[in-house]
Amino acid sequence: MRLTVIGIGLMGGSLALSLKKKGLVSNVIGVDHNLEHQKLALQLGIVDEIMSLEEAIAASDLIAIATPINVAESLLPTILNLVNKQVVFDLGSTKESIVGIAKAHINKGRFVPTHPMWGTEFSGPTAAQDDAFVDKATIICNKEQVDKDALELVEKMYQALGMHMLYMDAIKHDIHVAYVSHISHITSFALANTVLEKEKESDAIFELASSGFESTVRLAKSNAEMWVPIFMQNKENVLDVLNEHISQLKKFKASLEKENPDYLLELIQNANKIKRILK
Amino acid sequence: MRLTVIGIGLMGGSLALSLKKKGLVSNVIGVDHNLEHQKLALQLGIVDEIMSLEEAIAASDLIAIATPINVAESLLPTILNLVNKQVVFDLGSTKESIVGIAKAHINKGRFVPTHPMWGTEFSGPTAAQDDAFVDKATIICNKEQVDKDALELVEKMYQALGMHMLYMDAIKHDIHVAYVSHISHITSFALANTVLEKEKESDAIFELASSGFESTVRLAKSNAEMWVPIFMQNKENVLDVLNEHISQLKKFKASLEKENPDYLLELIQNANKIKRILK
Repeated sequence: MRLTVIGIGLMGGSLALSLKKKGLVSNVIGVDHNLEHQKLALQLGIVDEIMSLEEAIAASDLIAIATPINVAESLLPTILNLVNKQVVFDLGSTKESIVGIAKAHINKGRFVPTHPMWGTEFSGPTAAQDDAFVDKATIICNKEQVDKDALELVEKMYQALGMHMLYMDAIKHDIHVAYVSHISHITSFALANTVLEKEKESDAIFELASSGFESTVRLAKSNAEMWVPIFMQNKENVLDVLNEHISQLKKFKASLEKENPDYLLELIQNANKIKRILK
Repeated sequence: MRLTVIGIGLMGGSLALSLKKKGLVSNVIGVDHNLEHQKLALQLGIVDEIMSLEEAIAASDLIAIATPINVAESLLPTILNLVNKQVVFDLGSTKESIVGIAKAHINKGRFVPTHPMWGTEFSGPTAAQDDAFVDKATIICNKEQVDKDALELVEKMYQALGMHMLYMDAIKHDIHVAYVSHISHITSFALANTVLEKEKESDAIFELASSGFESTVRLAKSNAEMWVPIFMQNKENVLDVLNEHISQLKKFKASLEKENPDYLLELIQNANKIKRILK
């Protein structure tokens, strides 16, 4: 099977390397407007050749769109214009908008909207890993608008990577990911800004930061170009959960201002309930 | 050398196991009011015997206070009343208050105020690790009030565990840890409460939570009895940084409400600067 990866960064690169390792693809074609990323992807063995979008689509069986979501959405109609038997899927973190764009296209049946729940805070081809995705979930949205063979191929591919499928309406998907992914990134970015603002002694951050700080602030290293369109597109859901988060922080503030240890204990013990869900 | 550990949980237990493994202590005496923890500590080989506080102090060379900080502070005068040549140190996360209590005692020279920058989100004797503390920093506060031999023994002990020392005034310590440790815990507790409040489908949290969510919310599992007195005691500094954090979150909120991707990009790119400090 010949795979085209559009956008050879963390996600696209990891997909290519992991599928090659599993022997599921014989040949990977890379499409990327970034010349440095093209060069790196060839050097690192992520892709076997670089082509233009048109050439790549004509030469492949499976096409992965792994660009930031705003780019994916602008490319999708062009890509669907060019496919006939090929299968196209994306890996984007929001789904309502791209599902809507696909729906309006005559070749909508060739496009599988997916969101593999895996990532790291690093970006670019050098961040790609050949053992990515294992034991994580992939969400497939609005499968009723997808051709049977296209859906089966993408499911088979994710299963080969060790992932399990969840099926969900795109609107519901965007609500859930605001809670369990997008808000974590916002708090982490804001925490980094807080500490950079308050702690002017970089040495102190470096020396004193224990593993707890590193784990809460790790996501703040995440790629800005990727996250701006995600937050913008999922604005309503993100604002909803962000407002709740600010009001939860204000409860902690109130418990300290009023010197109320019982209330603080109650807040922390409630937070501890997350243990039941995350082992 | 005979070590007494008062409070045989995550910190005290890890200290005992790690020092035993390094061959630095021959015998560990445990003091704990929790009968279940006494039993577990003996079973797990963390301590060799359980004694009362008075017996334990009389029988040991080095005494570690590893209880929640409010308990440590109420015990310290009693402990200092009972020591003559012994060396006492604590492992607490705030330092101004306990340094003040020590200062008022005639045996203040026997007490070394320390804060090893290591921990996990788990608690109790079963959370103890025999390879803890390695490559982390230990802060020693107000060493000018400590006897030379007492300071040297505690430094030697932490060095044997693979730690490096930082020396700091207790007031400055409490400010720094509010930035690089306490605020991380508050955001993580508040994030857990946010998600538990908004996401009523536990299955969705479990299935969709990727490693990013797990790392930001990990600290929310931390022990409430340990953290309430820390936050209460470091109230002023924690409120200062918490107010800054809420205002940083409000900037993200404003960028979304005003649909201003340039401002959002600026906020995220500023957060990315944390890369320079944390690799």
